[in-house]
Amino acid sequence: MSSASQQSSSQRYFSEAELLAFAQQTCLGLGLTLPHAQAIARVVVAGQRDDCQSHGLYRLLTVAHTIQVGKVVLDAVPELTVQGASTIRVDAKFGFSPLAFERGLPELVKGARQAGVAALVINRCVHFSALWPEIEAITEQGLAALALTPSHAWVAPAGGKRPTLGTNPIAFGWPRPGPFPYVFDFATSAIARGDLELHSRAQTSLPPNCGVDANGLPTTDPVKVAQGAMLTFGGYKGSALATMVEIMAGALIGDWNSLQSLDYDNGANAAPTHGELILAFDPARLGGKTLAEQQEMAEGLFATIVDQGARLPSERRYAARLRSQQDGIAVPTTLYEEIVALVDQRGANIL
Amino acid sequence: MSSASQQSSSQRYFSEAELLAFAQQTCLGLGLTLPHAQAIARVVVAGQRDDCQSHGLYRLLTVAHTIQVGKVVLDAVPELTVQGASTIRVDAKFGFSPLAFERGLPELVKGARQAGVAALVINRCVHFSALWPEIEAITEQGLAALALTPSHAWVAPAGGKRPTLGTNPIAFGWPRPGPFPYVFDFATSAIARGDLELHSRAQTSLPPNCGVDANGLPTTDPVKVAQGAMLTFGGYKGSALATMVEIMAGALIGDWNSLQSLDYDNGANAAPTHGELILAFDPARLGGKTLAEQQEMAEGLFATIVDQGARLPSERRYAARLRSQQDGIAVPTTLYEEIVALVDQRGANIL
Repeated sequence: MSSASQQSSSQRYFSEAELLAFAQQTCLGLGLTLPHAQAIARVVVAGQRDDCQSHGLYRLLTVAHTIQVGKVVLDAVPELTVQGASTIRVDAKFGFSPLAFERGLPELVKGARQAGVAALVINRCVHFSALWPEIEAITEQGLAALALTPSHAWVAPAGGKRPTLGTNPIAFGWPRPGPFPYVFDFATSAIARGDLELHSRAQTSLPPNCGVDANGLPTTDPVKVAQGAMLTFGGYKGSALATMVEIMAGALIGDWNSLQSLDYDNGANAAPTHGELILAFDPARLGGKTLAEQQEMAEGLFATIVDQGARLPSERRYAARLRSQQDGIAVPTTLYEEIVALVDQRGANIL
Repeated sequence: MSSASQQSSSQRYFSEAELLAFAQQTCLGLGLTLPHAQAIARVVVAGQRDDCQSHGLYRLLTVAHTIQVGKVVLDAVPELTVQGASTIRVDAKFGFSPLAFERGLPELVKGARQAGVAALVINRCVHFSALWPEIEAITEQGLAALALTPSHAWVAPAGGKRPTLGTNPIAFGWPRPGPFPYVFDFATSAIARGDLELHSRAQTSLPPNCGVDANGLPTTDPVKVAQGAMLTFGGYKGSALATMVEIMAGALIGDWNSLQSLDYDNGANAAPTHGELILAFDPARLGGKTLAEQQEMAEGLFATIVDQGARLPSERRYAARLRSQQDGIAVPTTLYEEIVALVDQRGANIL
């Protein structure tokens, strides 16, 4: 271990290579094929590196549970179909999504450069990851990106009371000069599903406007919200956006929405199964100038935002990434031990 | 006049053809060329028909003011460039946007059907219209659509205090079976710019979370907000979306953002000048099923939303449209007289 001096009782520190090997070995131990194990390791280690605890190594527990309840195909081989430059389709065949994305990425990038805009449609994937690693893989190529995916139906539409919409994230990225792109990735629900569960366990009140009870009345009681429904952020506008995600990453691409994903889950509490839509845009083709000139236009806006004391999204993540590159990637010891226990001692032995 | 019996002192009623002729004649009287006059008439009459008072005939006053202060080219001929199926560019040459959109629409539809997704980039247009007429023109062709445009910089980013972002609308549409598509079109600002002005004149308080004073502190005083900045809807998430609109309909398409539009305006209070990005998606190409099958998937979601007492966006607009088709289109008499006075008696004489 490269950074043994920094171990503490509550955190362990790993190099990126060590953690990739650990995550990969865990996935192999869970029965996934090597290509899936590698793709999953890359996204969960990226999350851990950026101190996104909810989308870091913790997600290996979701992966393990989804496998245990039989809601994913361990050896699915994603099938790529290129329909001209602008439409790239990947059938994930009920396997985890990260490998399906990796299969489609090169064609998506090629298509956007050729056509100005291209769509990567992923169908029938089991989804547990954040969207920003995918967005960053596209911005690294000098392209802008927009990604949408449904989830499980936990959220009521504005004015409603029944779980209907997913937490439905929207993620966007723009390739800034330098190492860090402009990226946001947020749920259209008012709070994350995990936050609701934390409040339930801790018996603490939710912030206002996060949920309704079974009668559709506002409540901050997490137990009542679990019996009723979560709400979207931003009132009827957020609700409209969450509905757009259902349509664009559902009916538009011929795939399930969050209601259908939850039906299929049937109480198993597995990662949701549905589609994903990722759009890539070539600034040079769409804007008719050079990428550098168009980047400069955006930099003027970012400077105005930052100069007045506001923050750009992902700043906290990028700061954590720099820390991880310097000090190693921190993993809570309890989480590390929980993951080791998932398979057997092989996970621990590789380090 | 076809519906003279329904005239009242406060409202006048017109057939669609009568109102189109009136709006067109007004635009011609203001010095616009016939193609511009026709395109503008279509969008403002659509707004009036749907009882969108803020984007109906009222906008002819904006058109007239923008012409008076010299911020629009009256006889601009939009220039179309088709860069393969997926990228359609229209240079509006500092003319009003509706004609530029109409020029690009057939190629956008053709491109989406051929490639699955296509982008209509409109550059250097003067923009005063709602986005939903454009969205509906695309859904009528059995396609989904997403449209984005900046405006003037009146809105602070989350955590900031200076006018930086526009009111930046996002509009989306999906082609439902039957006459009325699923469509939303909303500003990413917490309230419309017009609402701020109404509160200022009426000396009434704003709702909370709509603006900050010059020091960045929350206030419901409309005068202090006018000296400070408006806020986006939905906190940091709405702010991120408004920033995305600036980038996608700005730097990505090589055009001005809301700060640059307001600079160019230089206090003239004209309609903003910038670009617009409109994406069209072919469900059949992206989803691999038939449009009817994919529409049925979306209808299941809409039924679940409506069954629980929630509303779909645009319902109020569609109800007004049905009323207008039956009773004629209502125009407030004071507004009608204000528009007649814009040019001379020609506008009145045509009816």
